[in-house]
Amino acid sequence: MYSSAELKSVETMEQLLDRIAAADIAGLDVFGIGEHHKKEFLDSAPTVILAAAAARTENIRLMSAVSVLSASDPVRLFQEFATLDIISKGRAEIVAGRGSSVEAFPLFGYSLNDYDALFKEKLDLLLQIRDEEFVTWSGKFRPELKNQPVYPRPLQEKLPVWVGVGGTAKSFIRAGSLGLPLMVAVIGGETDHFRPLVDLYRKAGEEAGFKPEELKVGLHSPGYVGENDQSAIEDYYPGYQESWTKIGLERGWPPVTRSHFDSLISEKGALVVGSAETVAKKLIRHSESLGGIDRFMFQMDIAGLTHQQLLQSIDLIGSKVLPLVNK
Amino acid sequence: MYSSAELKSVETMEQLLDRIAAADIAGLDVFGIGEHHKKEFLDSAPTVILAAAAARTENIRLMSAVSVLSASDPVRLFQEFATLDIISKGRAEIVAGRGSSVEAFPLFGYSLNDYDALFKEKLDLLLQIRDEEFVTWSGKFRPELKNQPVYPRPLQEKLPVWVGVGGTAKSFIRAGSLGLPLMVAVIGGETDHFRPLVDLYRKAGEEAGFKPEELKVGLHSPGYVGENDQSAIEDYYPGYQESWTKIGLERGWPPVTRSHFDSLISEKGALVVGSAETVAKKLIRHSESLGGIDRFMFQMDIAGLTHQQLLQSIDLIGSKVLPLVNK
Repeated sequence: MYSSAELKSVETMEQLLDRIAAADIAGLDVFGIGEHHKKEFLDSAPTVILAAAAARTENIRLMSAVSVLSASDPVRLFQEFATLDIISKGRAEIVAGRGSSVEAFPLFGYSLNDYDALFKEKLDLLLQIRDEEFVTWSGKFRPELKNQPVYPRPLQEKLPVWVGVGGTAKSFIRAGSLGLPLMVAVIGGETDHFRPLVDLYRKAGEEAGFKPEELKVGLHSPGYVGENDQSAIEDYYPGYQESWTKIGLERGWPPVTRSHFDSLISEKGALVVGSAETVAKKLIRHSESLGGIDRFMFQMDIAGLTHQQLLQSIDLIGSKVLPLVNK
Repeated sequence: MYSSAELKSVETMEQLLDRIAAADIAGLDVFGIGEHHKKEFLDSAPTVILAAAAARTENIRLMSAVSVLSASDPVRLFQEFATLDIISKGRAEIVAGRGSSVEAFPLFGYSLNDYDALFKEKLDLLLQIRDEEFVTWSGKFRPELKNQPVYPRPLQEKLPVWVGVGGTAKSFIRAGSLGLPLMVAVIGGETDHFRPLVDLYRKAGEEAGFKPEELKVGLHSPGYVGENDQSAIEDYYPGYQESWTKIGLERGWPPVTRSHFDSLISEKGALVVGSAETVAKKLIRHSESLGGIDRFMFQMDIAGLTHQQLLQSIDLIGSKVLPLVNK
């Protein structure tokens, strides 16, 4: 009745929802869903997936990772997350990014020449909608609003809006100036190289009058927890090598080699892969190297790991890593 | 911690999801969620609600009732419903309407002067996205697409797209010419007055080469099932009177009177209110008066009924009305 490609989508989606449910049971704080508009992903409408997850979970917070705000209508985006917030009883969070998934731009009629201007304008509108029920606003990339209300209103008084950043200083400063929590994606190199950028964020935030505790920092890096270091690496490396070599072809990076991978999983490297003890130590180190982080997001679903391996990793994060990190 | 208005939203949403779960258990075929952008509704993002419902149900089909296609981006709308279709394992359906909820137009920068042109163009694009993975398209109200794919693809080979219509002959003919299933909203007057319009639909469909079984007709009217006729009317009338008098103020209708209501619940009137036996008889009559209908949607949630009353009505539809109608 259905084609095998679509039946595969159903299985993939079901397993994703099972993993979010497992993460909730394991006591993880948050689960994020990306936004892509490609055949190999199923997440062009992340809030629809997160809403299904909300119905199956009790405590875990549900966030985008990241929403391509630049190519979205902030009114629709807010409405979707406000609805998710009501369904999940206050567990919705947005991570707004300029969009590393650049395929969204032509699909929605935007030019990459406006990459930063789009983000700035749309973030401005998103925050105004969040903070005011009736919105008067005008800009370049969306029709104006004249004292128009946006519904529903979320349960949380201020729906959390994180700014997702890569390595652009301007983005760190903007997030700080607005007093917004910062989600830093470090997918390669050494995590402590980002310290100067994080300091720019904190400085901009303090200069704008925000308190240190308002200036939250999250870190988002590839990671995976196995039974021990060796099995974690054996599980992780082959798929990582293949996936990131493929991504590298699109982005102009060299192919992944084992020695490069070894440097990435060494003490200072960005990747958080190993036994629970190794991973916990590394998270503490990463946190110290950035002057303290409030949240770490494991980017797990991009190294060809099986559903069973991902479930095991989620379970180990909850049962072993969290107790070690929170000691 | 939260304001009482927002806590009320959480309760309302939870009860709505409970009713969809109850409808699934009761064996109802389909549940629809409207799209409104007003304070008193929570459904500006219907697919987010339907996805939460999908996670809690097994068999019931999940549809919009209606999606304001004219004020939407068909690419996003398709992506959301395709995602819902994957999550629900093939249970998603779209009812696309020009939009009786006109507040969507100014919110998304559209003019009511383009009411019909918007719908025509966006329906054209929506169907093209449904029928082709790679889309080349250009129009007046949305940036063009040049051989661009839209993902994810739904599980159903052809995601059902119904055309939601009121009393406009042109809309019936358009739906027929396209061979799309027709959802007729009859919210007042006598249902058999719509027969000539439904005949226009069937004639247009046959002339365009579609088979009679492809030209499905759904009917959407206010309805409610009680223990007996008297209790159904006692439950239903006060809230109906209040709600529709209020809606009438916006739309220029006279206040609802009891004698008007009595005519609406009489043999030929649009309202389907009464005992299971009365309702079943009326559904059969409505079906005959329109030359056969394939689906009836009870518009229940607009007469101030309590959650318990709605649950009871859902249960009676499943346990008593359906067996009588399907005899």
